[in-house]
Amino acid sequence: MPAGCVIGVDLGGTKLLAGVVDSGLNVHHRAYRRSRGASEAEVLDIIVSAVREVRDAAERPIAGVGFGIPSLVDQERGTAVSTVHLPLRDVPFRDVMAERLGLPVWVDNDANAAMLVEHRAGAARGASHALMYTLGTGIGGAVLVDGRLVHGARGGAGELGHMTVDIDGPVCPCGQVGCLEALASGTALGREGERVARAVPDSRLGQALAAGREITGMLVTELAHDGCQAARDVVALIGTRLGVGIASMVNALNPEVVVVGGGVIAAGDLLLEPARDVVRRQALAPSRDDVRVVPARFGEESGMLGAALLALDGLDGRLAAA
Amino acid sequence: MPAGCVIGVDLGGTKLLAGVVDSGLNVHHRAYRRSRGASEAEVLDIIVSAVREVRDAAERPIAGVGFGIPSLVDQERGTAVSTVHLPLRDVPFRDVMAERLGLPVWVDNDANAAMLVEHRAGAARGASHALMYTLGTGIGGAVLVDGRLVHGARGGAGELGHMTVDIDGPVCPCGQVGCLEALASGTALGREGERVARAVPDSRLGQALAAGREITGMLVTELAHDGCQAARDVVALIGTRLGVGIASMVNALNPEVVVVGGGVIAAGDLLLEPARDVVRRQALAPSRDDVRVVPARFGEESGMLGAALLALDGLDGRLAAA
Repeated sequence: MPAGCVIGVDLGGTKLLAGVVDSGLNVHHRAYRRSRGASEAEVLDIIVSAVREVRDAAERPIAGVGFGIPSLVDQERGTAVSTVHLPLRDVPFRDVMAERLGLPVWVDNDANAAMLVEHRAGAARGASHALMYTLGTGIGGAVLVDGRLVHGARGGAGELGHMTVDIDGPVCPCGQVGCLEALASGTALGREGERVARAVPDSRLGQALAAGREITGMLVTELAHDGCQAARDVVALIGTRLGVGIASMVNALNPEVVVVGGGVIAAGDLLLEPARDVVRRQALAPSRDDVRVVPARFGEESGMLGAALLALDGLDGRLAAA
Repeated sequence: MPAGCVIGVDLGGTKLLAGVVDSGLNVHHRAYRRSRGASEAEVLDIIVSAVREVRDAAERPIAGVGFGIPSLVDQERGTAVSTVHLPLRDVPFRDVMAERLGLPVWVDNDANAAMLVEHRAGAARGASHALMYTLGTGIGGAVLVDGRLVHGARGGAGELGHMTVDIDGPVCPCGQVGCLEALASGTALGREGERVARAVPDSRLGQALAAGREITGMLVTELAHDGCQAARDVVALIGTRLGVGIASMVNALNPEVVVVGGGVIAAGDLLLEPARDVVRRQALAPSRDDVRVVPARFGEESGMLGAALLALDGLDGRLAAA
């Protein structure tokens, strides 16, 4: 393992992934934890335990830790301002973690972190205008304009999951109605999967439900890959809805590339092909003709790797300033 | 009239406004024309006749002409690539106009032109992050990030009227389903006005319909200002839908200010207050707390003045280069 390793942590609404990452973006050790349902204090404990696990497993000293968190982040204070899916509200995240871990800490929104690494070394490399969607418990987003991440007036930009696509649609965890997140997240994939499992009981999806299995987005994806047509239809429905959200933003910003990551991207082209169809049909020329809708190069790990890149960049900045 | 006057032309889907404008953005002469239903050749003739009218009325020579057109504009070639509301498709607009008018010509999208003047001297002055909506026959849009207009990969950015807000909604003139434009344009205001006129025949709106008047967006706005409750309800409905579209983009880009212009802004706070309500309720913190939703300072004339500013800036650039 080369010198200059860091730890990247992708904190999701359901689970956490921590990894030891070198400056070539190779991953040396990984630790997983569940975060769902934990209190604020428990979430912080879970993070510390996962970081310690990979730190102990690493053969060399760790120089810093980067976090991607599903929250609006106040960059000046390093604070998790508010989150929809975790009980973090006005938590001085950077300072708390730096103190508990005894290491320098960097923190940004999880989708911004994913966009960072996909732009530097992944599916959006070389693009000036790009969008990132991370589909997990919720939907995170990031916007790149003229080669730079857009933070907006106060760091609130990039909430692409909270665009209304159905004015009469279901209530979203954020409280709004008909958000893309309420229709096309991993949570929605599981919920629609359960609906179809009931409707088509002789499908493998229906049989899984009858056998008492919880119908999660991950299970629907597995069965879709295994050839279950009912599961494929559910994935395609989610992909179509995702495409509606993407087409709107393609019209608004005319990006060269739209990168889709997060756990749900495990569905691959079963998800993306219906999304591309909608973009091709519904977005305006020339934006619809230019744009590529592609999976994250780093798949489900782009959040973790992007978090590591926050730390690697931060350490470089310290060296340059010294 | 000071030296250095130009002509600004705002070409809309229904009508055209040309004005003689000095470098202090004062308007000296105006000409109006209808553009609706004209063929490509007729549209070009109408433009030339309006420009000649104000040029003849001006006491001093005109140095150039700027156009805001409801089309994607290829800036390199000065071409109107495609429009939803006028029969301009792959028209070499800049060259045709320069030849017919014998003057230097600049051209951009109409909403980009409106944003230009509102940012330089109007309601978005001093903002780094802003959105512009122009509500007329259709809905135009423009996006400002970090103080600069966003054009996107190929000039297609800013189509904020073609964001899906109702996945099961009415068909839009662009062919897509449930676009903001199909729900909240001046055309939609007239259409909803006619629906309500039939439903509430003893309202002044209903009486206007019974008297054989065409229920246009402008008439609904007039009656709303005159106190007709049915007309006010229609304007509020359009404002609410506009607010849904704005809230989505506020979540995506966290702007400081959203400027609403175009003919429909004649409705003022009757339109904007319901839109603000939706943004306050539906957008996420902190973006919803920061953003101001305001009328264009230059009202219905921001497109024309922005077009004039294109020419003034262009002439300045020529002087600087000489």
